[in-house]
Order: sequence, then structure tokens, then C-alpha cells
Amino acid sequence: MADENVVYVGNKPVMNYVLACVTQINRGANEIIVKARGRAISRAVDVAEILRNRFLLGKIDISDIKIATEQINRAEGGVANVSAIEITLSGGEETE
Amino acid sequence: MADENVVYVGNKPVMNYVLACVTQINRGANEIIVKARGRAISRAVDVAEILRNRFLLGKIDISDIKIATEQINRAEGGVANVSAIEITLSGGEETE
Repeated sequence: MADENVVYVGNKPVMNYVLACVTQINRGANEIIVKARGRAISRAVDVAEILRNRFLLGKIDISDIKIATEQINRAEGGVANVSAIEITLSGGEETE
Repeated sequence: MADENVVYVGNKPVMNYVLACVTQINRGANEIIVKARGRAISRAVDVAEILRNRFLLGKIDISDIKIATEQINRAEGGVANVSAIEITLSGGEETE
């Protein structure tokens, strides 16, 4: 699982990330991991749902969802806990 | 699975929902489903992570995470798609 198959969702419009994922799949990726932290988690779920129901309908499905807590260093010092999500989207077509 | 074991996460402070879940578990619930839609999805993940790592550490674990798209009626008419999440937290202790 190469790192190039990971799409990090941040604060840009949701369609930017949808397009990034569609591009990966069209280049032959069989699996994409959509990752986000904090408030961007909702947007990552939107990305996965839009792909599954619209742009990659029938081509991919959600194979795994993980949530976790990550520690980030604050600019003003100290450590903050932030929730994170990883949604794995896998191609339905088998490559034999 | 009775409906009383479902905690709907909205726009209140995260600790309100954490407390609601802890109360359910202390009343004997063996499973809780944390649900949220739209922007509250991030908060639902926070609730699950805080329960798992702090208040119910070793007592519960995440047994399932589902995401979906729901249709809601807009106040001004028409239908909008909104992402939703369901996080199932299950007790680690077996009841025999």
C-alpha cells in the first residue's frame, strides 16, 4: 500500500478531494485511503459517500473505517489530542 | 437492540454526549450506538474516542463503524443529501 494512495482531507472544498480520488482510481489504483483529523472528519465522510454513490458508483466500496486519537504539538507548546479517521475504499473489480 | 441505547450527537458540548453514554453503560447497557449527521460527525468520533480512551477504558471497544447518506427535507423545500455515521460501542465483559 503505497503512500500515494492516501488522500488527506483538509479545509478545501469537498470536490477537490473527490477529484483527487477519482484521479487515483483512473490511474489504476485499486485502493484509496481517505484520511482526516478534527473537524475535517465530516468532510472525509462526505468525500467517501460522494465517491461511492456518484462518481465511482459500482467501482469502489468502503472496505474499512478506523477511528483513532492522534497527538499534535500546539504552536503555543504542549500537546493536544485530536480525533482522526481513515476510510479505505477498495475497487470491486478483481485483478487476477 | 432497543432504541434507548442510541445516543444522537448534535451541537452541544462533547462532554454532554460522553456523559449520556457513560450513564447508559452504568445502567447495564452492553452496547451503545453513537449517531450523528453532517458536521456533528466529527464530534461523534470525539465522543467514541474519549469513551474508549478515558471514561470507559477497558470496558468498551468500537465494534462497528458505518457511514451512509441520508436525505433530509429542507425548510425552503427540496431535499438535501447529508452524510451520517453510526459508531457501535460494545462492552468487553461477557454476560453469561
